[in-house]
Parts: sequence; structure tokens; C-alpha cells
Amino acid sequence: MGTGSRKRILVLGGGFAGMFAARELQRRVGRVAEIELINEVNYFTFQPLLPEVAAGSISVRDAVAPLRRLLPGVRVRQAQIYAIDLERRIVTIFQGLQRRYTEVSYDHLVLALGQTVDLSRIPGLAAHALTMKTLSDALTLRNAVIDKLEHADITALPEVKKELLTFTVIGGGFSGVETAGEMKELIDRSLVFYPNIDRSEVRVLLVEFADRLLGELPASLGEYTRRSFEKRGIEVRLRTGIREATGTAIETTDGELIGTRTLVATIGNAPSPLVARLALPNERGRLRADRTLRVEGHDNVWALGDAALIPLVETPSERSHYAPPTAQFAVREARTLAKNIAAALDGRPGAPFVYKSKGALTSLGARRGVAEVYGLRLSGLPAWLLWRGYYLSFVPGFATRMRVAAQWLLDSMVGRSTVQTGMRQGPGTRYVRYRAGDRVFEEGNRADGFYAVVEGAFELRFRDADGSETLRRIGPGGHFGERVLLGEGLRTGTVRAIEDSVVLVVGAEDFGRLTKALPALRAHFEHGVATGLIASDLEDAIERQVRLDEG
Amino acid sequence: MGTGSRKRILVLGGGFAGMFAARELQRRVGRVAEIELINEVNYFTFQPLLPEVAAGSISVRDAVAPLRRLLPGVRVRQAQIYAIDLERRIVTIFQGLQRRYTEVSYDHLVLALGQTVDLSRIPGLAAHALTMKTLSDALTLRNAVIDKLEHADITALPEVKKELLTFTVIGGGFSGVETAGEMKELIDRSLVFYPNIDRSEVRVLLVEFADRLLGELPASLGEYTRRSFEKRGIEVRLRTGIREATGTAIETTDGELIGTRTLVATIGNAPSPLVARLALPNERGRLRADRTLRVEGHDNVWALGDAALIPLVETPSERSHYAPPTAQFAVREARTLAKNIAAALDGRPGAPFVYKSKGALTSLGARRGVAEVYGLRLSGLPAWLLWRGYYLSFVPGFATRMRVAAQWLLDSMVGRSTVQTGMRQGPGTRYVRYRAGDRVFEEGNRADGFYAVVEGAFELRFRDADGSETLRRIGPGGHFGERVLLGEGLRTGTVRAIEDSVVLVVGAEDFGRLTKALPALRAHFEHGVATGLIASDLEDAIERQVRLDEG
Repeated sequence: MGTGSRKRILVLGGGFAGMFAARELQRRVGRVAEIELINEVNYFTFQPLLPEVAAGSISVRDAVAPLRRLLPGVRVRQAQIYAIDLERRIVTIFQGLQRRYTEVSYDHLVLALGQTVDLSRIPGLAAHALTMKTLSDALTLRNAVIDKLEHADITALPEVKKELLTFTVIGGGFSGVETAGEMKELIDRSLVFYPNIDRSEVRVLLVEFADRLLGELPASLGEYTRRSFEKRGIEVRLRTGIREATGTAIETTDGELIGTRTLVATIGNAPSPLVARLALPNERGRLRADRTLRVEGHDNVWALGDAALIPLVETPSERSHYAPPTAQFAVREARTLAKNIAAALDGRPGAPFVYKSKGALTSLGARRGVAEVYGLRLSGLPAWLLWRGYYLSFVPGFATRMRVAAQWLLDSMVGRSTVQTGMRQGPGTRYVRYRAGDRVFEEGNRADGFYAVVEGAFELRFRDADGSETLRRIGPGGHFGERVLLGEGLRTGTVRAIEDSVVLVVGAEDFGRLTKALPALRAHFEHGVATGLIASDLEDAIERQVRLDEG
Repeated sequence: MGTGSRKRILVLGGGFAGMFAARELQRRVGRVAEIELINEVNYFTFQPLLPEVAAGSISVRDAVAPLRRLLPGVRVRQAQIYAIDLERRIVTIFQGLQRRYTEVSYDHLVLALGQTVDLSRIPGLAAHALTMKTLSDALTLRNAVIDKLEHADITALPEVKKELLTFTVIGGGFSGVETAGEMKELIDRSLVFYPNIDRSEVRVLLVEFADRLLGELPASLGEYTRRSFEKRGIEVRLRTGIREATGTAIETTDGELIGTRTLVATIGNAPSPLVARLALPNERGRLRADRTLRVEGHDNVWALGDAALIPLVETPSERSHYAPPTAQFAVREARTLAKNIAAALDGRPGAPFVYKSKGALTSLGARRGVAEVYGLRLSGLPAWLLWRGYYLSFVPGFATRMRVAAQWLLDSMVGRSTVQTGMRQGPGTRYVRYRAGDRVFEEGNRADGFYAVVEGAFELRFRDADGSETLRRIGPGGHFGERVLLGEGLRTGTVRAIEDSVVLVVGAEDFGRLTKALPALRAHFEHGVATGLIASDLEDAIERQVRLDEG
């Protein structure tokens, strides 16, 4: 694969860190070395613009740019990374639709794998919260918001309407603030099309565990943001965490139960599982690099960006002594990295990474922003214009930059569209969490899936042919819903969670296909249906029924 | 639900026919009647632009417009239509995320449900062909094309590369021609980013059963299109049908096997299942309307658009005596419909639908088009400019029109982006067709799913611990793949189709969740794994094995 004696530099990851690293490397050593970048998608995502994509103020293709176009001369592979072998200097990947493993060799390895989101620490959050990391996340959020407005416009149930019109963002950092601001704008602009929704019924909630918003900016700007949000009708809850989430509510650490059917989590940054698995020194999931961006103890392994812990001083002793995980730093790190790899190829020593932030800025939506640049604090329209200008200068590629500018201009003149992008995803299976007491189904409901109990317990109440009512308890391993999917389309009973519970839901169409393709499975369920049995474990179910009947 | 004595007019469907019907009705009788439109999505799709969306020359939101914005005064519901009760004058729907049925009453019912696609008549086509009806289809096609280029750029297998770089469109009508033309442009423009793909390796194929393209236009324009396509490297196969399709090939009615991994079907128009189920007179799936657009035998049921069969003359005797299923006609029909419903509300008789087509035109991509307008035939750039202008005038809404124009302008100046939109859909289950002899898995392949045999038979060949090779036949009801999913991640054997076969594939993640949530299912599979049994039916499997061992 290598071209004779040309050294191979392999960059893993195509975010700000990886993309700029490959770019700088190509500029510096592209003539003497082969640069290759491997990423899961073939485009670079301009993450700070994702909330604007969600709100529809810029279009999808203006928030992304093809890696190949951004990186002329660099070999770009769209592939999943499966394993890294530091001994053999080999990365194992899966490419495209292929089923075979492919091995890619390197002389120098650059780890720019960023971070992932881990919501598993709060029950129900992984199952019910949307995130804001990828293009797909942004589109999913837009569809979710519009779905809720559509539904709220026509529902006859006041409680449901309230839940539908409560939109919650968890996390008051840059991403959470931008998401809340843009989401509020999207809703405000859309309401004109929903005659049955009154502005006063909509509630946008921003929940932050710390005592202020935008922890990376001066306190005065965090406070400005809070006040600006409150004025625009965005409720800010500080010193508040989330204890549990379901499809219809969250419970805060104060014990308050808030009905909400749209939940965006901008918290839970976690190391890439690949980085965590590597036998490389790491601290809180970030790879320990030295000041030249080399991973400690390895001459030919480098790290930068969110995945790396890079000291800014000789003997770091506090958090501020490390480079923060921001795009601004990642781009500067990329330059140092390229210089140092060039030096390493020449047998020269590398130079330490030195950079002082020029400031930070963010949009609050509705033509307001906050910024601190060169020690100067700005807020409102000036900060917002600065933000737009700054990011426009950043958008890679002339064509895309022109498009974004044109769209922003159009957007300021004419309304934006409230349309869904039509990519309704029907995942095969999904987990759903219920709190004790939550009703899953009522009589007359449509059968929308098969429910397998993973955790907790449910009570099934139905009327037999002779009119007598039967009560049944269904615990882990048990299931419900197959009765109606295999027979009649309408529920014949009521199902309620009697403990905090988790179910795995299989969509009606997938369930139908599965039982058709697997006669054994069908027979298993039909047996249950015929005898009136729902739980899979016969004796256990009977025993439980007896207990319930007695109780 | 009704407002006192105001009559309720219910329009089902939000395509050209339904949207324009609601619009015209609102204009004519909006003051005296309540107009409501029900559609599955909350936006109107500008279908003729979908191939351009797929090619990335216009962005998603410029090919759609919110129905609510297009229809001020009209009540718009985003809902699935479940049933129509002509006796009770009630339509039963499902709204949004609700699980309950909702009943909507009407005085006049307008059926504008268009047509759906039915690919079931050609084996494998429904499982493997993409369609070009919805926004989601357009995005899926773009992602599919780029996926293939990504994969082709890196594969080391010449046969696979050939299949990956062969793109096939079935159907040479307007939609097929536009799709082939735009897809070729997308590929041509993208190739610069894929250094390992030579232009000569790409093959775009347009397959049409008739002896000419664009049957609705004069033969000379169909011939112009064919020659223009051939010049641009699009192969046109006339008088050719499809006999079978798999994930890697099609077989034509000539018996030729063409390796191709991208398949777009623009054929197979079929009546909406809802229309087919109604106890209303229909012919080849289209509702029989009289010349005033009333459905025969019903005073208060009307039909228009693709779903209706509307005579243009008093005693129709041939196909050209009926209104063709085009947007141009649908829009005119909407006007007649509104007039006639207004008349009916006043107790006056309706007037017959009269319209003569002004012509037809289509884009061939690459700034070429063909058109016949007022008897005048145009081709090349003039026809293409006419097409752009015509459709621009048609695009609803000033803002959207400006955006489309701006994007077209930008597009002519700067390259378009080759990015995927990131909405990778992992359907829970999918059907896959194999031809006898096709290999499903080879040793060392990644386990990407669980395979349940629906039709046909497979041969599984694997090596036991003692080194002896075992051969097993798996037929309908049997399955494979669970062995590796539950244990090791790598295949231990080879699977080959020994008959033309269909399997249901369950993704690895969904399969893992299912077996975790359903201990009974897990036990069933583990039993099979432990005893080395793969087929679900024990005796059958043993018997078959014996036969194979003997044979």
C-alpha cells in the first residue's frame, strides 16, 4: 500500500482536529510522506452550525463539506475503525459495504477521534434524549419539534398538549445555549401555522447543573444570556440536574416532575470507545499527550483535539493548564502537530504547543449573541454579528461560504420553512422507559408494536370473553402486544407500569416480518395467545397471577 | 367538530391534486364552507425536482413547502388515513404520535390520494430497488450513489468494483429520464474526488420496456433524448424488461445478467391501497369519475389527480380520451373541482372538465432538455432553460422561488457538494434476494446480521473443531448468522444460495437486543448453536443433511 519508502501518516477522525491536522500535514510534508485520513462519514461537519440546521436557518449542505474537497492530495477513506495495533503499526477497518476487514499500515499515527456522548448514567436519558453532535442529530431534532407542534395542534387532551409543548434542553454550555435559542426561534416562527397553539402554551426549558450558563465565558456574559433568555420566554433552571427521563417526563434532582416530550441532552461527553480501549495513557478518557502532542511513551503516536489531554505549561496542576476541548484550540494544535511530525521525519526535536485563546463567542438565536474577544465583552446584536462573521470566515470553501451568506441574507428577509425533511426513521427496536404508574396502553389503542420487558414490571388488565376481568403481572423476560399484532389490531386491555421499567419495543411491521420468517417464534407467541398467557415463563406468570389475584 | 351549519369539505392527499384542490376550494367557498386537508406529511413535495435533490443541485427545503403556508385558511392535518366510511360520511385517521383513532366527518369528500409504487411483480425488485416518489427517496438515492463511489474507490476486488460503478434506472418516462440524467451529472462531478475511479469504469444504464423513451412526447424527442444520453455516456436499453433483481445484479428479459448495486425503479405505479379498498367504481386502480369529477354514483364524493380516471370526452373509447396523470392536468382539474363543489353547495349543476395540454417538457441534466410546447418541439439548452423557467414559476411561495433561483445560479458558478446527508437508516429488518449460486458469506467475513430463510435454500459449509467439513442445507423457516452473533464475531463457514432465495435480515444490534430481552428466543438460538443445529426444524434439518451427505 505504501509507495516505496514514502512514510505513511495516518490520521484517524475527520472533525476539526483531524481535518485540520491532515490539511496542515499535507502542506508541510505532503511531498515526502503519504497522508491518509480515515473517518466514518465522507464529510466534515461544521458542528457550531448544527443548531442552525436544526432550526432551519441554514440548509444541511451548508453545514458540511466533503472531506475530499477540503483535503486535496490527502487520501480519504470512509470507514469504520475496528482496532488499532500499536505493535504492528496497523489499523483495522471496515470499509463501506464490505464485510472483510482491511488493514492499513502507518509510520505515524494521529489520533483525532474526538468525543462521543454517553448518557447512560441517568436512567432513561439514552433512550429518550436527542443529542446534538452530528448532522443527523440536527435533522432529527427539527423533525421532532415539528412533529410535536403538529400533534399539539390537534390533540384534544390538555395534559398531552402540555407535554408536547414543553421542550427541554439539558446542559447550559455553548451547545445547549445555542440549541435552546435556535429551537425557541424555530417554534416562534412556526406558530403562525398552528392556529390551535397559543404562544403562552409553549415552554422551552434550559436545565444546567452548575450555578451559571456558559461556564467558559465570564460570569457577566452567562448572566446576560440568562436574562436574555428569560425575556424571550426561555426558562433557565440553574443548579438543577436530571434524575430520570421517560418519553413523557423528566424528574429533576429537586424531585420535580416536568412533563416534556422533547428532550435534548448536550451533556455527557465521553471518550471514544476506541480511545478508551487502547493501551495508551489516558486521564478521564483523554489521551495523555506531551507538549509536542506526542502520546506519552510513543514516538510515532500523536493526539490532538477533544480526545487529547494537552498540557499548556511544563508542570500542569489545574484544569486551566490543559488545552480546552474547543475547535479554536484544535485548529492551532493541528499546526503544531504538522510542524512536529515534519521535524520527527527529519530527525529534529519538536516544539511545544503554545496558544492563548483569543476569546469565545456564541449565538443565542433571535439576533443576539455574547462574546469575549481579546478581553472585550460584547452582547446582543454586535456579538451576534461578530459570531456570524467569525464563523463565516471559518466555513471551508468559497462556494459554501457564499451559500451560507446568501441563506442568512434570505433568512433575514423572508420566513424560514417549517418542514420536516421527510427522513422518518423507524428503528427496528428501541428502548422505552416508564415510571411506576405510567400507562402504556389503554383499551381501544392502536397496536403499534411488540413490547418485551427488560426491567421492572407491568400490570396487564383485560376482559375475557365471559366478561370477567383478569389482572396479570409481567416482569423481565415477559412481553405484551403480540396478542393484538397477531390477531386483532386493537388493544383489548390496559397496560400500566407498576415499577420503574424499561421495555424493548419492536415495531409492528418488523414484528410481523419476524414471526412470518421464523415459524418457531410465531408458534411460541401463538401458544401464549391461545392460552391467554402473556409472560414467557409459564410457571412464573401463573405464580405472579395468583399473588396479584390474592392481593 | 363542524361549526354549526357550515358544510365541511375534506380533501385527502396533499400532492399537486389535493393541494391545489384545497387552495381553489378555499378561494371559492372558504367563506361558506370549512376546508380541511389531510396528508401523511405536513409539506407539499415538488416531485419534478426530486431528481435534482438527489443530484444535489437544489437543496431539500427548496423542493418542499409547508402545506400550512401554502393553504392559509385551510385546516391542515398531518395524519395517516386508516379508513373511509362513505355511509356515515366519516374518515378515520391516526394523528401524529397518538395511538387513538380519530374520526373526521365531512359533507363533501375529495379523493386526491395519488398513486403508490408496487414493485412486487418482479422478484427482488421491492427488496433492492430505490424509488423516486418522496423527498426521502431522493436523499436515499444520493446517499446510495456516494456510498458506492466511496466503496469503489477503495475496493481491491475488480468484480465488486464493476458492480459498484454500474448504476441502473428502470423506466424511461419523465421520472426515469430525469433521474438517469441527474445521477450521471452527480457522478461526473464527483469523480474528481475519487482518484481510483476512472471515468470509463462508470456505467449508467437506463432500461425501458417500450421501444422508445418519453412515451408522452413525440417520437422525435424521445430519439433526441436517447442520442443525447448515449453521447453523455448513459447507456439506453430499449425493448428490455427486468426479470429479477438482487443486491448485486439484475437479469433482463433477454436473459442477460448485469452486475449492478444501485437500482432505481421509476415503474410500477399502482393505486393507493386505500382507494383500492373503497367500495367505489374503479378501473385499473383509478377511481371512475364523471366529467364533473364526481365519483360515479356518489353525489358528495369527488376524485382528481393520478388516483382518478377522468373522461375528457362524452363517450371515451381509448386511453387518450382520459386525463393523463400529470401535474399539469391535476392543477386544472383542481379548478374545475372547486367550481363544481361550489355549484353543488348552491344546488346548481357542475360543468365538465375541459383542458387541452399545452405541451410537456423535461430536463435531461447537463443543461439539456426536451420540450413540446404549443406544438413546438425544442431540445438542448433552449428546452432546458424553458424547463427551469416553467418550474420556477410553479414553485410555490416567493421565498422558496428566490432560493431555488439563487441556488441554480450558484450551482452554475461553483461545484456542488458531494456529501451524504448523514441520515443513515438502519431498518430493523430487510428482505434480501439471492440467485442460486450467490455467495452470502465467506470465511473471515464480519457478522452483520441474523438471516432467516423465507424462500429458497442455502448451503452452509463449515469446519468443525476436529477439522472435518460439514455441509448443511437450510430451507424456509431455518436461519443462520445467530451462531456468530451470539458467540464469535467472525463467520466460521461459507454460506451460498443453492436456489433462488429470499432471506429476512435482522441487524446485529437489533438481534442482540431481541435475544437479550427475550430469554426464550435466546435459549432457542443457543440450543441450536450448542448442538450445531442451524435450521429451526430439527427433523427436517437432519433429514436434509443426510440427503446432502449422501449426494
